[in-house]
Amino acid sequence: MACSKFEYVKKFEQDEHLLPGCYIVVRIDGRGFHRFAEKHDFQKPNDIQALTLMNKCAIEVMKETPDIMLAYGQSDEYSFVISRESILFQRRRSKIESMVVSQFSSAYVFHWASTMEGRTLQYPPGFDARAVCYPTTKTLLDYLSWRQVDCHINNLYNTTFWTMVEKGGISNRDAEEQLKGSLSVNKNEILFSDYGINYNDEPEMFKKGSVLVWEEGLKEVKRTPEGVSVRRNRRWVEVLHCDIVCIDFWVSRFPDLLQSDV
Amino acid sequence: MACSKFEYVKKFEQDEHLLPGCYIVVRIDGRGFHRFAEKHDFQKPNDIQALTLMNKCAIEVMKETPDIMLAYGQSDEYSFVISRESILFQRRRSKIESMVVSQFSSAYVFHWASTMEGRTLQYPPGFDARAVCYPTTKTLLDYLSWRQVDCHINNLYNTTFWTMVEKGGISNRDAEEQLKGSLSVNKNEILFSDYGINYNDEPEMFKKGSVLVWEEGLKEVKRTPEGVSVRRNRRWVEVLHCDIVCIDFWVSRFPDLLQSDV
Amino acid sequence: MACSKFEYVKKFEQDEHLLPGCYIVVRIDGRGFHRFAEKHDFQKPNDIQALTLMNKCAIEVMKETPDIMLAYGQSDEYSFVISRESILFQRRRSKIESMVVSQFSSAYVFHWASTMEGRTLQYPPGFDARAVCYPTTKTLLDYLSWRQVDCHINNLYNTTFWTMVEKGGISNRDAEEQLKGSLSVNKNEILFSDYGINYNDEPEMFKKGSVLVWEEGLKEVKRTPEGVSVRRNRRWVEVLHCDIVCIDFWVSRFPDLLQSDV
Amino acid sequence: MACSKFEYVKKFEQDEHLLPGCYIVVRIDGRGFHRFAEKHDFQKPNDIQALTLMNKCAIEVMKETPDIMLAYGQSDEYSFVISRESILFQRRRSKIESMVVSQFSSAYVFHWASTMEGRTLQYPPGFDARAVCYPTTKTLLDYLSWRQVDCHINNLYNTTFWTMVEKGGISNRDAEEQLKGSLSVNKNEILFSDYGINYNDEPEMFKKGSVLVWEEGLKEVKRTPEGVSVRRNRRWVEVLHCDIVCIDFWVSRFPDLLQSDV
Repeated sequence: MACSKFEYVKKFEQDEHLLPGCYIVVRIDGRGFHRFAEKHDFQKPNDIQALTLMNKCAIEVMKETPDIMLAYGQSDEYSFVISRESILFQRRRSKIESMVVSQFSSAYVFHWASTMEGRTLQYPPGFDARAVCYPTTKTLLDYLSWRQVDCHINNLYNTTFWTMVEKGGISNRDAEEQLKGSLSVNKNEILFSDYGINYNDEPEMFKKGSVLVWEEGLKEVKRTPEGVSVRRNRRWVEVLHCDIVCIDFWVSRFPDLLQSDV
Repeated sequence: MACSKFEYVKKFEQDEHLLPGCYIVVRIDGRGFHRFAEKHDFQKPNDIQALTLMNKCAIEVMKETPDIMLAYGQSDEYSFVISRESILFQRRRSKIESMVVSQFSSAYVFHWASTMEGRTLQYPPGFDARAVCYPTTKTLLDYLSWRQVDCHINNLYNTTFWTMVEKGGISNRDAEEQLKGSLSVNKNEILFSDYGINYNDEPEMFKKGSVLVWEEGLKEVKRTPEGVSVRRNRRWVEVLHCDIVCIDFWVSRFPDLLQSDV
Repeated sequence: MACSKFEYVKKFEQDEHLLPGCYIVVRIDGRGFHRFAEKHDFQKPNDIQALTLMNKCAIEVMKETPDIMLAYGQSDEYSFVISRESILFQRRRSKIESMVVSQFSSAYVFHWASTMEGRTLQYPPGFDARAVCYPTTKTLLDYLSWRQVDCHINNLYNTTFWTMVEKGGISNRDAEEQLKGSLSVNKNEILFSDYGINYNDEPEMFKKGSVLVWEEGLKEVKRTPEGVSVRRNRRWVEVLHCDIVCIDFWVSRFPDLLQSDV
Repeated sequence: MACSKFEYVKKFEQDEHLLPGCYIVVRIDGRGFHRFAEKHDFQKPNDIQALTLMNKCAIEVMKETPDIMLAYGQSDEYSFVISRESILFQRRRSKIESMVVSQFSSAYVFHWASTMEGRTLQYPPGFDARAVCYPTTKTLLDYLSWRQVDCHINNLYNTTFWTMVEKGGISNRDAEEQLKGSLSVNKNEILFSDYGINYNDEPEMFKKGSVLVWEEGLKEVKRTPEGVSVRRNRRWVEVLHCDIVCIDFWVSRFPDLLQSDV
């Protein structure tokens, strides 16, 4: 509506359009979450409620944006994968990044009370976001493998560290010292020999992170007065805690993806 | 900590650094706020509580980021001006945009209950963000003038429209029809002759929007047991509703700015 | 060597790195070549010497840059395809574009006299360049098909047009009028019925453009005093005038390419 | 003219538009000019003909592009300054960079024979180009000062070095060793005491580089049969070898520039 002699300043706006044909990954990360976790008594090494809250927010983002084909989350980060063909916001970087991180951030505060039972939110948290283009299916899958391997390595370390500290009464500094340079097999051994913990029995959500995918099928939407179930075709988001490094997941869930490049 | 054969995927990340020496304006905008306003019974044409909430969030963003030298808000948008010399996040576009919009979004939900008395937040709102570089003081001031003139034009229109509808009992369609192509003077005339409203008497926040600036000075931080006031030098954010198109504001508040270019 | 208080101005330089994993196509185009062709008596619709000169320059560019895997030229344009894995100049856009266009331009003047026999170069010509990323083999092949189909369409039109003008004595305007909206089949028909020309018999370089590829094999590098041929493994650029729209070319010449994406 | 199912590949082209309101500097640099200078017997430390050739090419570029307000050259590099308000090629980076470097490169070969008397061009040289935005007059002037100070420092060093080698019969290595860490005053002293050379008497083109500016005024364009001079207003490029670090040059030549920012 407004039109003035000052409107020329719009010319200074520069839109970057993300390269067509590429997968777009938007990764968000909690800012200052070390302190945030402490202030809100996050359980170590994993706070189930906090992870559940992350998943709720990610589901909300996916529902707002059907072009997101998959999301992967661990710790205080989440990666959203937008399909190659997507023309969401004409693939403008700023729009895509800000839309995802804004939706996620406001959902985080919105769902806090119902998820983090009994804990009061002290201050509004911040996340940052970055969109990255991956040109081939191989590079996309390697990206997701990178994040899941990162989850595994960090979780094994943290599980061992906090077990030593909390069950073993070892000081933070000593635990850190003992774990320096240790291999996976060493940490598994410490957990098992010293504390009787089999790392494999740890919850899958901790070891693998969370994988969000679309499901489609018949869902009961209501019942008739006579008690007959009325079912309609629906799409919803499913939360999995499975291996996405191995190709099996992709073959069964996204068979088209693996032949989409040529 | 994590290091794997998949880590090469980091090379696909591309950082844009905003041109040094330029002012950076980050403007955020409510997404789908027409519907959001309706769902939450925003008063027409201006909802004081909703505007106050916007201001609270903007103050929070400024406090988190001292490099923001001024912010200007109206309706469901806010512009944050980052100083020319700032090296915030090494001036990386994605970091700056996402940090501002994330902080604002989570603050919006966080402060909702204490500001929007009695109204329940139905769903988490979204904002988008864009950073724009302005190379000279003139272009920056013209940008801000653009937004304030926009505020004025929209507010005069909306004030007249909603007065006709709510006080005059005119249908939305008829009011729209009557205002089509009307000049400022016509709208002022309608308000005054038909409804006895002097537009100049409308609240400054509605007509001018909100200008956030830093103030500095002595503030009482505590009192001694003897009742003596202890004052320290402090910086805080002040909310103004003044004209920023006219040069006077800049001369008195930012005298250095006007000679900073050569 | 030089270091001064002014050196801070280097910070204003912004390097764009082209997305890894993508094919990079650098296309150069003659600027103002309509006029340039007239001033230098280019034969219509194709000047063999001028096309040969283009090819010589392109060969020179390829030899300077082994990362170029293929080049395709027609009329006053040339496209250079850089491999996906290339880290030439760290994939900096400005370096890649300027290197190609500069090398091509100076080669054009350098080889003029030896190629355009008898014609004097009136003034130095200009070319522009742009680099484009293609994320998949399919999109790269479609790009090259686009250019070759363009070559075909233009050449059929131009061949018919100039035959009508030069052999048929028809005015430029009348020829243009008659060809407006005509199909390929119509133009073939005009050439054949009115002028006895079978378009298929036209030179392949005119109909298909030029395709530059690397060849490798034993080449005689010298002869011993006794007259024995000494052969070494060498790489050289071969000029082809073949179909690159059809997949056969790629299957036989670049079999790896077609399975490189996943 | 051509329109095919492959045309969608144009969508992959990404145009970067350089920020409006900024000065644009396009700097070109000779590639591999150390070797090029040797192959073509460039005189040390300065080859007047080679520098003259650089100037000729730069003049040609300026004439092609009236938006270039000034150019500065030294050694094998040249910087072209495009005015803030310019909308040349809609300020597209690739177009601007490639146009300048292509024109310069082909001019270099074109004017070689008439400038480098007696020397034969062995192979076509290459240049690279980069465009950089400068938001304020101060940063632009500092950029140009940076290049001119660089010219001075390099020329003083090279003059001393080659005098020691060629007149003093000192080996390259020994000369290098003696000059390591030396100050300007030391080099001046060596030149004067050991070789009787007053550096101040060296040619201005060597010490200051070349500054190209537009001149405007009446020029004789022809003479009538009666011998009367006919003069018209004309614009031409003037080559200066003056100081551009000191503000005086700018005050006298570009008085508007210094007040253009606010």
